[in-house]
Amino acid sequence: MNIVNIIEKKKGGNALTKDEISFAINGFLDKTILDSQMSSLLMAICFKGMNDEETYYLTDVMINSGSVIDLSKIDGITVDKHSTGGVGDKISLILLPIVASCGIKVPKMSGRSLGHTGGTIDKLESIPGFRTSMSIDYFIEQINEIGMGIISQTLNMVPADKRIYALRSITGTTDSLPLIASSIMSKKIASGAKNIVIDVKVGKGALVKDLDEARELSNIMIEIGKKFDRKVVCLLTNMDYPLGRSIGNILEVVEAMQVLDGSGTEDLKSISLELATLMISTGKGVSREEAYLEAKEALESGRALEKFKEFVSYQGGNLNYIELSTNIKSFNSKFSGYITNIDARKLADFIVDIRSKEKIDYKTGIVLNKKLGDFVEVGEKLLDVYINSDAENNNIEITNYDEILENCFEISEKKNKAEVKLIYEVVE
Amino acid sequence: MNIVNIIEKKKGGNALTKDEISFAINGFLDKTILDSQMSSLLMAICFKGMNDEETYYLTDVMINSGSVIDLSKIDGITVDKHSTGGVGDKISLILLPIVASCGIKVPKMSGRSLGHTGGTIDKLESIPGFRTSMSIDYFIEQINEIGMGIISQTLNMVPADKRIYALRSITGTTDSLPLIASSIMSKKIASGAKNIVIDVKVGKGALVKDLDEARELSNIMIEIGKKFDRKVVCLLTNMDYPLGRSIGNILEVVEAMQVLDGSGTEDLKSISLELATLMISTGKGVSREEAYLEAKEALESGRALEKFKEFVSYQGGNLNYIELSTNIKSFNSKFSGYITNIDARKLADFIVDIRSKEKIDYKTGIVLNKKLGDFVEVGEKLLDVYINSDAENNNIEITNYDEILENCFEISEKKNKAEVKLIYEVVE
Repeated sequence: MNIVNIIEKKKGGNALTKDEISFAINGFLDKTILDSQMSSLLMAICFKGMNDEETYYLTDVMINSGSVIDLSKIDGITVDKHSTGGVGDKISLILLPIVASCGIKVPKMSGRSLGHTGGTIDKLESIPGFRTSMSIDYFIEQINEIGMGIISQTLNMVPADKRIYALRSITGTTDSLPLIASSIMSKKIASGAKNIVIDVKVGKGALVKDLDEARELSNIMIEIGKKFDRKVVCLLTNMDYPLGRSIGNILEVVEAMQVLDGSGTEDLKSISLELATLMISTGKGVSREEAYLEAKEALESGRALEKFKEFVSYQGGNLNYIELSTNIKSFNSKFSGYITNIDARKLADFIVDIRSKEKIDYKTGIVLNKKLGDFVEVGEKLLDVYINSDAENNNIEITNYDEILENCFEISEKKNKAEVKLIYEVVE
Repeated sequence: MNIVNIIEKKKGGNALTKDEISFAINGFLDKTILDSQMSSLLMAICFKGMNDEETYYLTDVMINSGSVIDLSKIDGITVDKHSTGGVGDKISLILLPIVASCGIKVPKMSGRSLGHTGGTIDKLESIPGFRTSMSIDYFIEQINEIGMGIISQTLNMVPADKRIYALRSITGTTDSLPLIASSIMSKKIASGAKNIVIDVKVGKGALVKDLDEARELSNIMIEIGKKFDRKVVCLLTNMDYPLGRSIGNILEVVEAMQVLDGSGTEDLKSISLELATLMISTGKGVSREEAYLEAKEALESGRALEKFKEFVSYQGGNLNYIELSTNIKSFNSKFSGYITNIDARKLADFIVDIRSKEKIDYKTGIVLNKKLGDFVEVGEKLLDVYINSDAENNNIEITNYDEILENCFEISEKKNKAEVKLIYEVVE
């Protein structure tokens, strides 16, 4: 077998065999196949796609490139959650305590921030003392005791995905549905999940730009799930605008707690409840209506907030020691009118620009003072930029600071006619 | 500027600017852009192409990546020749002495064997003593004295093409017309050629498989030529079958001399005369008919053979010391009938398989005893395999030797109806 022939076969639009996919991935891992060969194969896949069989083979080969976690020692029903990644997406921090406090076991392995999208592990580590790595035995013990836990993926889980993902992010080959689907599903399956609810983000701030693509991605993931005997349910949600008010690690933790104590924004609350409904109904086999009422009660009674605090403390975090930056720069509106657009992607890119490049920056971020549809006066505050003064390489002195932020907003004398749809549909 | 954005721009089918192309190529050369990024860009170019402007920019950036040779000190009119690469293509060794003995100056820089196609430099080096590298001043002196010379491309000429070509050959990105055209033209322009005749090989043994593609490639090269004020004429010739009888470095030198002394095959003779006609008419501005008669006279009078001997001896080669392998294995036909196909590509791949992998193998090759259309009896010899017993890593003991060679021939009781067209057309 020869990698050039395999690349040319895919380039010509032909389906690869299991042996060919295995040869390519394993050769890439043992470095007999070069990065340059893998990236040209990935680009050919971006153009020519992969059918369900190929995508399944790819997922299987990736899972078998590392260790697979056995969660069978967890008592009760486990349901995992994944998000395809958005801007200001702190949903896991709200959703998991709701679901866990309804009796579903939620053992979640999560990733770090990638490009403009945030990562739950980075957010949690912004809580002083919080530990994101531990032995699997200890993790299972935690889940049995308190019902939930979030740790970072172990180093030897799906190493093929880690290397391919890193290569995709620097070679312009991220936006291929079979590659996205196999990347997500290989990690979920290797981490032992039996029931998986996936928040498929759609829009300008997400990897998937339109609903048709999101449906296709969902169906590919559901098909892969079937072949591995896992139940997959997808919820398609809007990612044109940032979720909630804050973007930035520690700021998002604080906001998640606001939603849990009832003072958060409606968008975060309703997406969290919708996903909780799917997780509870999938796990318990009850109707959506029943599951929704259970989730709502857990949130509104404060049980979910208690679960969140228990979870943070169990993993060593101390919420009393949370420190926000006091170096805050406000950005005010030059115009008056209704806010008709807030560009999630541009805001996220702005934060990437100003945060530390050397190490994970927990403090840098923004908090919106106005949300989509709000009215703003001239000179009124649109947002606060939190600047991490400790970070050595922050880039806050960029000259066109104001201009960049101005470009993130559209302000108009008329309100948008059509209401923004937050939740599109369930695909299962 | 950011390479991922450039890759994604091309992936989306958009034309790149001169700055973007320059950023990509120069970054690749100074290693700020990785091989994996360049190969995914090349794959995107394979799918989305490049327009005339982009191809010109690419050629220009490549030329300027290294030194450019000034041939203005050559007295008289210079015409260069290039072949897109074939199997058994020893045309340059026949053609150049013909043209030089008609008074055209032919300073040719040539490459080594690449993949299954041969390289003129390797062929010439199989002559004991032959030198293929020298200073440009010395080279110009030689051209002024004897009218022709063939040397290898200097190391610092078009380094961008060298690195991109090497990357293309291992990443399945060879068959893109703008990439082929810019690779050829950057080398020809940097080596100082003002008039260029290109033998565009078409068929199973060539990079370009059909006539439409060959016409398109020719037109791209002619357009590039115009932008650099160079005259380009293309001749489209058949490369479904091997040219002449021999494939392999020293065997091809011997065969070229047979054509020059009048005992060679018709196909080599007629393609050589056709290309000579184009070179002479382009160089002297005379009609094709007049040029053809001149070329024919130079060949048939033996003047071209004398020129060849003078050229070899001037570059240090000694034809008396040529040594062919004496380890010859004949391959005989199991069938009787007319030979309706000889697969050039398969024969070339067979030689690649059995030749030394460690260093350039001058002796390994084959000599056909039968050509297309010939009748063969059962047990009659189809070809001789010349085995280089000195080569440490020859692989002649491959078990399915007979089977591979058998697959190179099609033998039928009926002759092919349609005559094989050797020369298709001139594109200028």
